[in-house]
Amino acid sequence: MHTDLVAALDIGGTKIAGALIDGHGRILVRAQRPTPAQQDGDTVMRAVEEVLGELTAAPLWARAGAVGIGSAGPVDASAGTVSPVNVPGWRDYPLVERVRAVTGGLPVELIGDGVAITAAEHWQGAARGHDNALCMVVSTGVGGGLVLGGRLHPGPTGNAGHIGHISVDLDGDPCPCGARGCVERIASGPNIARRALADGWRPGPDGDASAAAVAAAARAGDPVAVASFERAARALAAGIAATATLVEIDIAVIGGGVGKAGDVLFAPLRRALGDYATLSFVRHLTVAPARMGTDAGLVGAAAAVLVGRERAAAAGV
Amino acid sequence: MHTDLVAALDIGGTKIAGALIDGHGRILVRAQRPTPAQQDGDTVMRAVEEVLGELTAAPLWARAGAVGIGSAGPVDASAGTVSPVNVPGWRDYPLVERVRAVTGGLPVELIGDGVAITAAEHWQGAARGHDNALCMVVSTGVGGGLVLGGRLHPGPTGNAGHIGHISVDLDGDPCPCGARGCVERIASGPNIARRALADGWRPGPDGDASAAAVAAAARAGDPVAVASFERAARALAAGIAATATLVEIDIAVIGGGVGKAGDVLFAPLRRALGDYATLSFVRHLTVAPARMGTDAGLVGAAAAVLVGRERAAAAGV
Repeated sequence: MHTDLVAALDIGGTKIAGALIDGHGRILVRAQRPTPAQQDGDTVMRAVEEVLGELTAAPLWARAGAVGIGSAGPVDASAGTVSPVNVPGWRDYPLVERVRAVTGGLPVELIGDGVAITAAEHWQGAARGHDNALCMVVSTGVGGGLVLGGRLHPGPTGNAGHIGHISVDLDGDPCPCGARGCVERIASGPNIARRALADGWRPGPDGDASAAAVAAAARAGDPVAVASFERAARALAAGIAATATLVEIDIAVIGGGVGKAGDVLFAPLRRALGDYATLSFVRHLTVAPARMGTDAGLVGAAAAVLVGRERAAAAGV
Repeated sequence: MHTDLVAALDIGGTKIAGALIDGHGRILVRAQRPTPAQQDGDTVMRAVEEVLGELTAAPLWARAGAVGIGSAGPVDASAGTVSPVNVPGWRDYPLVERVRAVTGGLPVELIGDGVAITAAEHWQGAARGHDNALCMVVSTGVGGGLVLGGRLHPGPTGNAGHIGHISVDLDGDPCPCGARGCVERIASGPNIARRALADGWRPGPDGDASAAAVAAAARAGDPVAVASFERAARALAAGIAATATLVEIDIAVIGGGVGKAGDVLFAPLRRALGDYATLSFVRHLTVAPARMGTDAGLVGAAAAVLVGRERAAAAGV
């Protein structure tokens, strides 16, 4: 039997998605459950088992040769455990071992969700053809992942590219992570909205005080809304420029809800990059919106497995 | 004839050093000239040719199989050119081609000086045995390099690890590079001294107003001197934590004149790392002083060649 499919899991604080995915990144079977994020660890695991149960019940399951997991972080790929910030019931939770037990001992690959998104954008999205790329999700949080020298760089524990929690303002506001002035503390959707409200912006009659509403106000010319996006853009630019200066990337891909704000974000971001990416070897850096949709996490988890296999095959392993 | 030696060049703003180095990192022949840094490009090249002339005149030259160059940056390894900030006569200067011409067509490998120091510390110094490391030079400037997944990571242009010019204070003081609040702008020796003087510290009777003199004052308990080192330590910690969060390193090695300040730097640096390196996968990060001496640039340039050859041999190339 040819095992040409990968079972993929995308585990977040809101939903647990699963799929059987072929070598072209097509989703052939899918399953999903809400994440019982505030419940105990075993209850969360039961939701994962229900998703996997639907997949293993599918006739195509016989063609699944491996499982790829992209999980909200931090993860520990070397230990096979996950400790998602928004799922308190899971701390150093042995997810790889549990998934292996449910799937009949298939090999299981674990990466962080930012790394999974990056694998997807590099395989089929905006980072395709780029050997050195940073891919980001700017949303409720800010996450990311790296492609270096043509390969995904998950790092030893699968968390590399965690750009949301690098400090670009060492005296800045405290971040829930414990540091100060992190990119996420300035540029995430909730922080864009919080800053606009604090500076006097008021939501419209519908009461929508989200970053998307601030983006709409910015597009209509509201100066406070514009300023809040400009501040977020500066923090993103400083973080992206730092990444390029440290590891040499030539493109930064930005997805997530805030990434969908369009020119309200990208115009000041490109200007600010000119201010922070100043050395000769980073000046050509470009930014682009993400191209993969909501399935990026699933497709990326599959990509991490498929690319790993190809590399092993090429090396004769 | 067995070509088991490497000719190494270490090109800085003050001196141009050259050596023939064996596979154990031993320097068998050496030559050196001052860098005529403020003169035209051809004059600078003549100093390089004089250094190489001494090496090629040595009987051991017959055993040299390649040339490794570590140069003040920025460099462009893909184009074979260098544009050292402190050598204005060299802008996109075709150093690799010129060195190849002088050395009878030997293969030439070019990397930035921070990358060279890193190669040396990883081969024989404080980063030995660490698969993921940042090595820094904190001196008149702040430079660095990265080891990722057990290998030197020079990046496509040979400049990766340029930690001195990542911004950790996006609203901070303008940096000569054009950005604001760069690590170098806060933590370099001249900036440590400048800040201490601005805050009221005064040099002793010998008039020494260097960072080394500020370090001596800090050791004697001068609160302004202590505060200036603490500020430098916070900037270094934010930069090191950012690097660890982005690419997962487990050690940061610090050399250069400021790195020699000892506990005056390392004690507040370790405290500040606790403030900025907060995520689970970076909390185990350690810092250590560099172990290689003034020959690190030469040994590292040789290491980059030797390791590249070993890898090629292992891959059957």
